[in-house]
Amino acid sequence: MKHYIGIDIGGMSCKAGVVNEKGEIVFRGSCPTKANAHYSEIIKDIADLTTEVIKNAGLSLKDIQAVGMGIPGTIDSENGVIVYSNNISFKKVPVIKEFKKHIKLPVFIGNDANCAALGEVVFGSAKGLKDIVFITLGTGVGSGIILNGKIFAGKGGSGAEAGHMVIISGGDKCTCGRKGCWEAYASASALIKLTERMAKKEPLSRVAQIIKADGKASGETAFKASKEGDKLGQKIVAKYAKYVSDGIVNLVNIFRPDAVLVGGGISNQGDYFIDMLAKQADKASYGGKINPRPVIKSAGLLNDAGILGAVSLCFEETK
Amino acid sequence: MKHYIGIDIGGMSCKAGVVNEKGEIVFRGSCPTKANAHYSEIIKDIADLTTEVIKNAGLSLKDIQAVGMGIPGTIDSENGVIVYSNNISFKKVPVIKEFKKHIKLPVFIGNDANCAALGEVVFGSAKGLKDIVFITLGTGVGSGIILNGKIFAGKGGSGAEAGHMVIISGGDKCTCGRKGCWEAYASASALIKLTERMAKKEPLSRVAQIIKADGKASGETAFKASKEGDKLGQKIVAKYAKYVSDGIVNLVNIFRPDAVLVGGGISNQGDYFIDMLAKQADKASYGGKINPRPVIKSAGLLNDAGILGAVSLCFEETK
Repeated sequence: MKHYIGIDIGGMSCKAGVVNEKGEIVFRGSCPTKANAHYSEIIKDIADLTTEVIKNAGLSLKDIQAVGMGIPGTIDSENGVIVYSNNISFKKVPVIKEFKKHIKLPVFIGNDANCAALGEVVFGSAKGLKDIVFITLGTGVGSGIILNGKIFAGKGGSGAEAGHMVIISGGDKCTCGRKGCWEAYASASALIKLTERMAKKEPLSRVAQIIKADGKASGETAFKASKEGDKLGQKIVAKYAKYVSDGIVNLVNIFRPDAVLVGGGISNQGDYFIDMLAKQADKASYGGKINPRPVIKSAGLLNDAGILGAVSLCFEETK
Repeated sequence: MKHYIGIDIGGMSCKAGVVNEKGEIVFRGSCPTKANAHYSEIIKDIADLTTEVIKNAGLSLKDIQAVGMGIPGTIDSENGVIVYSNNISFKKVPVIKEFKKHIKLPVFIGNDANCAALGEVVFGSAKGLKDIVFITLGTGVGSGIILNGKIFAGKGGSGAEAGHMVIISGGDKCTCGRKGCWEAYASASALIKLTERMAKKEPLSRVAQIIKADGKASGETAFKASKEGDKLGQKIVAKYAKYVSDGIVNLVNIFRPDAVLVGGGISNQGDYFIDMLAKQADKASYGGKINPRPVIKSAGLLNDAGILGAVSLCFEETK
């Protein structure tokens, strides 16, 4: 059976998985990402990790077809260069060239959200679909766009940044410097801030109680209270769902894809949340019922999104 | 020399042009669009107009390679069907099949804004570029997206509706039913409303004077006053330019194209306005100077956009 390596490069750690042609992760491992080290050292660590997982899976280099890497930031897949990655302080790093100094295999790279999107089409809950928009609601709002079965990333890989589309011109400050980006309203971080702000005004609410008990608000606080029937919890969740669906409808009107997939921590709320988004998207998308309405659903790969997303690059490129 | 027919179908009239392979319109004609007539009658009129312009250009049917039609609304180019056109009250009209009853030539159809975008790539100010976003600032905000030299229109031709992306969640009501769409802030109609609203508060301003003299505000009022040094005029234009550039930056962050082209009535303001947009896009686009920055410029085809946009469909399909 053919095997592939999927590598999920993060700011804290790098994860590698040996994946067979059925999309099953047969072995995995990880190593810390050395903060502030030179890129050659970090990439050497990743190559060592790769060698280790291959060996521990009972395989050798000749059993491996290709390596896929998902990396946060602006990735120039065509030229094999990490243009800019804030999380790992990489700037213009020729990662494929560097990796090949250690391991002579075909290597494909992509932005991690783009990889996760492709992974959903190859292995996940959008399997077989051609045009999808994938969003992750986490610390930020990531997005990946698949058009005709392929990653669409814009010039030099610097597009597909839907988290940085303004939904409230002049609104809350975003980490990117703009005001009112979708990320500033639809990320888990934004939900936490909203929860804290609204709980302060109603100290007797269930939301406020949960915050007090837990010591702080999380992305789950408002959902928990809402599911228990708390009015404020419901208000916060509805407000947050409106922000998320505003961006989704924008993307539907622009791309009119087969499906919109929602991943990231918040998607753990499952149908309780996804149904709200689907309802609003159905109502607000341009042309109403005349136009084809995309399915809105949870992403399927969850914790394996990093490794399987990275591997899907190999499936796409070598098929 | 090869010749083509470009047809620009509008709510009031249909225009047809005979275009040679250099992209020159060698003959043109028009006919009224019969309001409320059955589609077969309207399409018969268009076929008659086509026959007439071919004859008047001194050509015959065998000299014509193909016919391109640009139509407002949701156009399913693949199946040759007008899914929905508000302006002409067309719904599920098999326009290619109907037209071929009269004239046996290859026919290609597309949404008019999409055609105009393709026209800019084939003949206009984006000649030779592969990835562009084209917007028209008129009664509404139209958009056309060209990816890898081809029209991107989403499923069933119902995407590329960037005018209906929300830039102020819960903001001004849009004709589509949503609140806060880009169209509700960046269209010429929105600029006129903004001009009227702000002039009322400052009846001694140059803007108010011009409105009084002209009997009403137009899309040019604020620009005229602004160019004359009027503070209120400058304030209105700056506010409007901010709204327009908010949407442009959204599209840059999503598509990261080679160029963004601005057409429609407002683009007559030329560099005075385009420079404002370019400056703001340069400043606010994600990643700043690290990422490739698209050129922001005026559309080039102006009044010929309808016919040349429609013809560009033939160039694209028959090359």
